[in-house]
Amino acid sequence: MSIRHDVAGMKAIVPVMMSASADQRNRALRLMAEALNREKDWIFGANGEDLKRAEEAGITGAVIKRLTFDEGKLKAVTEGLLSLADLPDPVGRVRLRRSLDEGLTLRQISCPIGVIGVIFEARPDAMVQIASLCVKSGNCAVLKGGRETAATNRVIFELLSGAVSEAGLPENCLIQAELHSEIDELLSLEDLVDLLIPRGSNAFVRYIMDHTKIPVMGHADGICHIYVDKDADEDMAVRVIVDAKTQYAAACNAVETLLVDRAAAASFLPKLASALTEAHVAMRGTKEAAAMLPGIITEGADFRTEYLDYTVSIGLVDGVREAVDHINTYGSHHTDAIMTENDEAAAYFARMVDSAGVYRNCSTRFADGFRYGFGAEVGISTGKLHARGPVGLEGLMTYKYELTGHGHTVGDYASGERSFHFRDLNDDV
Amino acid sequence: MSIRHDVAGMKAIVPVMMSASADQRNRALRLMAEALNREKDWIFGANGEDLKRAEEAGITGAVIKRLTFDEGKLKAVTEGLLSLADLPDPVGRVRLRRSLDEGLTLRQISCPIGVIGVIFEARPDAMVQIASLCVKSGNCAVLKGGRETAATNRVIFELLSGAVSEAGLPENCLIQAELHSEIDELLSLEDLVDLLIPRGSNAFVRYIMDHTKIPVMGHADGICHIYVDKDADEDMAVRVIVDAKTQYAAACNAVETLLVDRAAAASFLPKLASALTEAHVAMRGTKEAAAMLPGIITEGADFRTEYLDYTVSIGLVDGVREAVDHINTYGSHHTDAIMTENDEAAAYFARMVDSAGVYRNCSTRFADGFRYGFGAEVGISTGKLHARGPVGLEGLMTYKYELTGHGHTVGDYASGERSFHFRDLNDDV
Repeated sequence: MSIRHDVAGMKAIVPVMMSASADQRNRALRLMAEALNREKDWIFGANGEDLKRAEEAGITGAVIKRLTFDEGKLKAVTEGLLSLADLPDPVGRVRLRRSLDEGLTLRQISCPIGVIGVIFEARPDAMVQIASLCVKSGNCAVLKGGRETAATNRVIFELLSGAVSEAGLPENCLIQAELHSEIDELLSLEDLVDLLIPRGSNAFVRYIMDHTKIPVMGHADGICHIYVDKDADEDMAVRVIVDAKTQYAAACNAVETLLVDRAAAASFLPKLASALTEAHVAMRGTKEAAAMLPGIITEGADFRTEYLDYTVSIGLVDGVREAVDHINTYGSHHTDAIMTENDEAAAYFARMVDSAGVYRNCSTRFADGFRYGFGAEVGISTGKLHARGPVGLEGLMTYKYELTGHGHTVGDYASGERSFHFRDLNDDV
Repeated sequence: MSIRHDVAGMKAIVPVMMSASADQRNRALRLMAEALNREKDWIFGANGEDLKRAEEAGITGAVIKRLTFDEGKLKAVTEGLLSLADLPDPVGRVRLRRSLDEGLTLRQISCPIGVIGVIFEARPDAMVQIASLCVKSGNCAVLKGGRETAATNRVIFELLSGAVSEAGLPENCLIQAELHSEIDELLSLEDLVDLLIPRGSNAFVRYIMDHTKIPVMGHADGICHIYVDKDADEDMAVRVIVDAKTQYAAACNAVETLLVDRAAAASFLPKLASALTEAHVAMRGTKEAAAMLPGIITEGADFRTEYLDYTVSIGLVDGVREAVDHINTYGSHHTDAIMTENDEAAAYFARMVDSAGVYRNCSTRFADGFRYGFGAEVGISTGKLHARGPVGLEGLMTYKYELTGHGHTVGDYASGERSFHFRDLNDDV
C-alpha cells in the first residue's frame, strides 16, 4: 500500500475531522494520556530494544538521551496532553462578522488546514506532541518518525491511534509512515498535503525545505545575534549574553554572534571575556576583536556558523546601523537582541532588523511558544508567510468565509440598484 | 545586468522601505496618480503602438480590449490610487501586547513581507494596481508585465518609479523586468523573493505555481458550484444562478456546475432551463439530467471544466451529503453555494465544504475583496496558508515580535526563581 493511497483516503475524511466537536477532540487527547500511562511498560520495552540497537550501532551520549523514552518523558508528554485538552478550542472562532448590506452577512471563521505531514528525527516524544496538536486543531496528520526509534514509535502510534478511534474520530485521521523511502514520497504529495512540519536537526529541516513544493513550517538555521550598544548597561549585557549562550546552547534561539560597539569595546570586552571564560564558552572573533583581548581566537569566526555549542563569534561594529546591516546580511531572521539604554537606538534596531523576534535588553532564549504564553508550541518559523516566530495552535488553522443572503445577486449592485453598507457587527448581533 | 543582481540590491533596501512613514507611502500613491494624469498622452501613444503591433499579429476582440489603456482605464486606476492612499495604514499595527512578567513586554507588530514578485499578463492597469498595493504596504516589488503591452508598461513604470523617488522612497523599491526569459529567473530567486503574485489566465497561474519554490498567492482554477436543495426557494435559486453564471461569465467566481437535489429536479429543472435559455446559457449535464429535460446536452459535461463562458454543467444528487462530496471532489476550493431554507442542510454545507467561501442563498459572484469591504484587493487565494479567499492589504503583511526587558534571562525562569504571569495589555497601558 503506497503512502499516496493512504493519504488520499485521509484527504477524503478531512471534512469529517474538521467538523468533529471540541469535546470529541479533547476526549481523544485525554484517552491518549490514559493509554500511554496504562501501557507504559510496553512502550519502555520497545524503547529498550531501540536503545540496544542504537548502542550496538555505536550511538552515544546526547543522541541516546534523545532516543530515550522513560518515566520523565512519559510524565512530560502526558501532562502536555492534559493541558492541551484544557486549552480553548481554536476551531470555529468568528474572526470577522460584517453586514455587507441588509440581509447579507459575512463571517470569517477559523477552521483546520486539513492534512499536515510531520517528519521528525529521533525523539519519540515529538510524535505525541505533534499528533496531539493536530488532533486538538481538527487536522489530519501523517506521522513519520526516525528509524532509530522505530519500535517505540510503532507502539506509541498504536496507542494514539486507538485513542482517536475510541473518541469517535475517524480512524485514519492519524497515519504512520515507517519506511525511510516514504519520506520522499510524502514530500511529493503537494496535491494532498497542505503543510509539512519537520522536527530535527537544521540539516534535516533544510533537506525537507529543499525537496518539496509543500509549504514547510520551521526554521533551518538559528543564527541569533546580540548587539551591545555603546549605551548598554554593561553588567546587564554580560548577564544576558551568558544566559543566551549557555542556558541551553543546543537550542535554535541560543546566541551565536556578539556584535560590540567599537565605542564600548575597550570597557566591555574584558568583562565579557571574563564571564564567558568562567562559563566555559570559547570565543572566536575578528582580528580586531582578538587584538583587544587575548582570550579570543581568530580562526573559524565566519559569522555564518550556528555553533549550537559553548562557542560564540565576536565582531566589532560602528554603532547600531552597522550592527543592523550585519544582522540582516549574516543572520537567519530568527531572533536578535540589542542591549542599550538608548531609546532611539532601540527603536532603530526594532524597526530595521528583519527578523521574527527583535529584542531589547533580554535574552534571545525567550523566543519560544510557551514563554510567549501560547500554551502549546507547533514550532518556530523563520518564514514570513502564514506564521512567523514561535507558533502556537493558530499556526495549524486557516479560515473560511461564510456568506449568508436572501437571494442577493451581484447584478443589483453592479446596476446601482443596491449598494453595500459594510458594517462590522459585534458578537451580540 | 541580471534580475538576480537587481533583486539582491532590492533585498538590501527592504528595511529602509519597511520603515518609510505612512505619509511618504501615501504621498507616493498620490504622485503616481498625478503623473499618470499629467503624462496620459505619452501613455496613450505608447499604448497605440502596442495595439497596432497586436492587431498586426492577429489579436482581436476581448484580448485587444484587455490590452487597451484609455481614458476609462486611466480614470479607474487613478481613482483607485487616491482611495488606496486614504485607507488606514496596515504597517505597524500592534496585534498583541502581553506582559510576560514584571518589566518583560511582548508586542506582535504588523510589518511588510519584503520583496514581492508580480507577474501579469496583458492588462497594463494591473501594473498600477499591484505596484500601488505593494507601496501602500511598505513592500518592494519586482514587476513583470506582458510583452503585448511592453511599450505601455515601460511608460507606466517610468512614471510610477519617478513618483516613488519624488516621495523620498528608495528608488529601487520598484523594479521592472522586461524580458520573457526573466520570468524563469525570477521564479528561481527563492532566496530573495518572499511572495509571488501572478495575474492572468488560469493556465498562466498554474505555470507559475508549478515552476517555483516561492510561495504563490492566487488561484489556478475557479470551479464554483451552486447546490439547489429540495428545501430551496426555487424562484430565488433561479435568480441567483442566472446572476452567478451571467453577471460576468469570465470571472473565476462565476458558477460552473449546478447540482440539483433529485427530490427537487422535476419541479426545478424546467424553471431553471427556461431562465438559462432566455439568458443564452448552454446547459450540459449527465444523462439522467438530460433525460428529464431536452434542453440539456450530455456531451462535454465532466464536472472538472471551468467554462468561463455562457455554459454550465448540471448534475443530480441525493441531498446535501452527496452534494458536499461532489464539491469536495471536483471543486477547486474557491466558492460554493447552497440554496436552501433548511438551516440544518445549510449548517452541514457550511461546515463540510472545504472551500474559501461557503455561501447560502446568494451568488458566488460576491467572492471579491471589494464586495467583502476590504477596500483594495490583492487577489483571491485558493491556498489555505497565509491568506484564503479574497485578500486585502493584510495579505501583503507579516509581523514581528518585539520583546522588551530589563536584563531578563531565561535561567531565572528555568530555575523557578521567577515565573511568567501572561497578562494581555490593552492599548492604554
